[in-house]
Amino acid sequence: MRDSPSMQDLAKRARGASRACARLDAEDRRRILESMAEAIEGASASIVSANATDMEAGRSSGLSNAMLDRLMLNDGRVRGMAQGLRDVAALPDALGEELERIERPNGLVISKVRAPMGVVLMIYESRPNVTADAAGICLKAGSAVILKGGSEAFHSNSAIAEAMIEGGRSAGLPEHAIQLLRTTERADVHELLQMDNQIDLVIPRGGEGLIRAIAEHSRVPVLKHYKGVCHVFVDETADVDMAQEICVNAKCQRPGVCNAMETLLVHQACAEKFLPQIGRAFGEHGVEVRCDPDALSILGAGVPATEDDWREEYLDLICAIRVVSSLDDAIEHINFFGSGHTDAIVTSDKQNAERFLREVDSATVYHNASTRFTDGAEFGKGAEIGISTDKLHARGPCGVEEITTYKYVARGQGQVRT
Amino acid sequence: MRDSPSMQDLAKRARGASRACARLDAEDRRRILESMAEAIEGASASIVSANATDMEAGRSSGLSNAMLDRLMLNDGRVRGMAQGLRDVAALPDALGEELERIERPNGLVISKVRAPMGVVLMIYESRPNVTADAAGICLKAGSAVILKGGSEAFHSNSAIAEAMIEGGRSAGLPEHAIQLLRTTERADVHELLQMDNQIDLVIPRGGEGLIRAIAEHSRVPVLKHYKGVCHVFVDETADVDMAQEICVNAKCQRPGVCNAMETLLVHQACAEKFLPQIGRAFGEHGVEVRCDPDALSILGAGVPATEDDWREEYLDLICAIRVVSSLDDAIEHINFFGSGHTDAIVTSDKQNAERFLREVDSATVYHNASTRFTDGAEFGKGAEIGISTDKLHARGPCGVEEITTYKYVARGQGQVRT
Repeated sequence: MRDSPSMQDLAKRARGASRACARLDAEDRRRILESMAEAIEGASASIVSANATDMEAGRSSGLSNAMLDRLMLNDGRVRGMAQGLRDVAALPDALGEELERIERPNGLVISKVRAPMGVVLMIYESRPNVTADAAGICLKAGSAVILKGGSEAFHSNSAIAEAMIEGGRSAGLPEHAIQLLRTTERADVHELLQMDNQIDLVIPRGGEGLIRAIAEHSRVPVLKHYKGVCHVFVDETADVDMAQEICVNAKCQRPGVCNAMETLLVHQACAEKFLPQIGRAFGEHGVEVRCDPDALSILGAGVPATEDDWREEYLDLICAIRVVSSLDDAIEHINFFGSGHTDAIVTSDKQNAERFLREVDSATVYHNASTRFTDGAEFGKGAEIGISTDKLHARGPCGVEEITTYKYVARGQGQVRT
Repeated sequence: MRDSPSMQDLAKRARGASRACARLDAEDRRRILESMAEAIEGASASIVSANATDMEAGRSSGLSNAMLDRLMLNDGRVRGMAQGLRDVAALPDALGEELERIERPNGLVISKVRAPMGVVLMIYESRPNVTADAAGICLKAGSAVILKGGSEAFHSNSAIAEAMIEGGRSAGLPEHAIQLLRTTERADVHELLQMDNQIDLVIPRGGEGLIRAIAEHSRVPVLKHYKGVCHVFVDETADVDMAQEICVNAKCQRPGVCNAMETLLVHQACAEKFLPQIGRAFGEHGVEVRCDPDALSILGAGVPATEDDWREEYLDLICAIRVVSSLDDAIEHINFFGSGHTDAIVTSDKQNAERFLREVDSATVYHNASTRFTDGAEFGKGAEIGISTDKLHARGPCGVEEITTYKYVARGQGQVRT
């Protein structure tokens, strides 16, 4: 067993490590990440064995099969984690990039350059692969990371972290650049959330309850990934076959993810034509529908929707359906009930499309495409640490770039202000 | 007297107005700002007369002369406010700008575009011109704004807001896009700070105490402008004449501002040479020095510094001085005691300069130039709403761009995910 440092010590060590991380160059970071990947592969047997301990405890404590599946590691999944680290290593390095250059009349040259965030606190549940993913992305972004995984994955996370740190160290990983929090005390986490002088950013990954609790208690800024109550609005002039294909894809291709459609809005002028058609398609895919009175009467089937349905992230083969009388009503419904994640319009009217894209206040908005494209890989980010539903700092899919900051670097020859 | 809406109503109206603001185009915004400027000039007499009421109350309640000077408005200052609005109107429009474009193999085109933040709550003290400045910048950035000024400027702020709203309305300013909070109850402000569903951003302008209190109570993200404990580090190889000019400028040109130098760090290898020289120059400018033992013994004068001096933002003709034994010590001192605002190195050693610029974790870092350049105008931002000492979202001088967000706008032809 290791000693357990106090939260103050842990955070101070992370701050110290972040200074050392800021001194690494792109090639250092690449080499360290490769070495971490190799070490994880090399430790596969002990990681899988530590995971067996968690799985056994999970089974006795009655974790659901879905939870157990998320928790489970085997050789293939461990190789997947290592590959994830290699993919991050291979990404172009973001730090030091000049984002803007201001040349002043007095000769002062001011560069806005991408810089490391500093210390990131990552709080997550169940999936042990987040241990490797988050450490990799933070390190690539030049930051030190404190990892706090779920207690159900304690042994798995410890084994992964130990291997990564060991492997990283041999390639120059600064001491304490990756720290796994071994406490299970909620008070310890709350203590860390007060340390806005030592920790620069908190990223919670998990259910809405976890994220809200952290956002409420934290003095450190939180990058929030709340739920995805995603809409598709089928406008008056929509190509109904395209609309059907998009809606089936958005709802059924993978219903358990945050970019799946939860509410379908249909313009009243095409409801008589479109609803029976999508009703049949949903029926074939086993989708349960919760309808407003108009949709109910056209479909002649389904469960009446309550107001709660408009706010619900089902993550399941359930779809709320509402008939709206105009584009404005659709936009208002989405801005009022939506979660600012992803929303789409299907229309042949370019003007309506542009109004929807501009006025729907969400991280990602689509014209004539499925909501399912909102993720880091599809956006070419290489690795994803979450999808922000915030408006400050980062919005939508977040990769390495989104957990960096910038600074202004000014070079002069003795300039003073007059 | 007007009715006083509840905080809930006020925030809801702002949210509604933000939707209307998002529908304005660049020319609408320009025209509204011009009309606001004209209305302020036209209302100069009534603004100055409202200000006289505040000034009288300020005098009876014993406001300092410095406070009274900040509060005071005359015809010239009102014209200055109007000119400020015209300057903002003339800035290039930032909204809708494509920041990045991703073209996917399936033909989906994803644009990252600059988008309005939504609703901004501006909380400020004494200076009534902030009423006009903040409203102008928020409107230019496409957001609705709730203004909460200091109670000592209540009549002045009301007169300015009334004129702006009246003038803006005649040019198409959406109703409730600018609202002045008429309450003096702290509980009302606290209520607003909980409304993270209606308000997107809080910007406090004022003393450190005000900002800390808001940051602690707010669930809405806060753009913080804490103090400026700015350093100049005079390195071993510094050109001492250049160093003296920079230090005198950074300390004496305008000591009461956040980008003035508060602590001077001198490399021990040039302390014997540089300190007596800067000591004489400071003496001529009436600067009081607070010194560590080494500096004290070399200078043979000054007050011994306590640890508090290293954290102090004097905003006055006082300078803390410390002799350090290396570049590393200087960087460590700054990262530990500094406020992340602005720091400078004077050196002829390019490698040391680059290390300092990279490793000092501050919003703005300078090589061979005065700290006094950190402000919106010098950075070409046209208008400034503050200087952020945060690392998330916006760092350093904040203008119109810094109070916008972005969104991903994807245009397809029926793409679905496979």
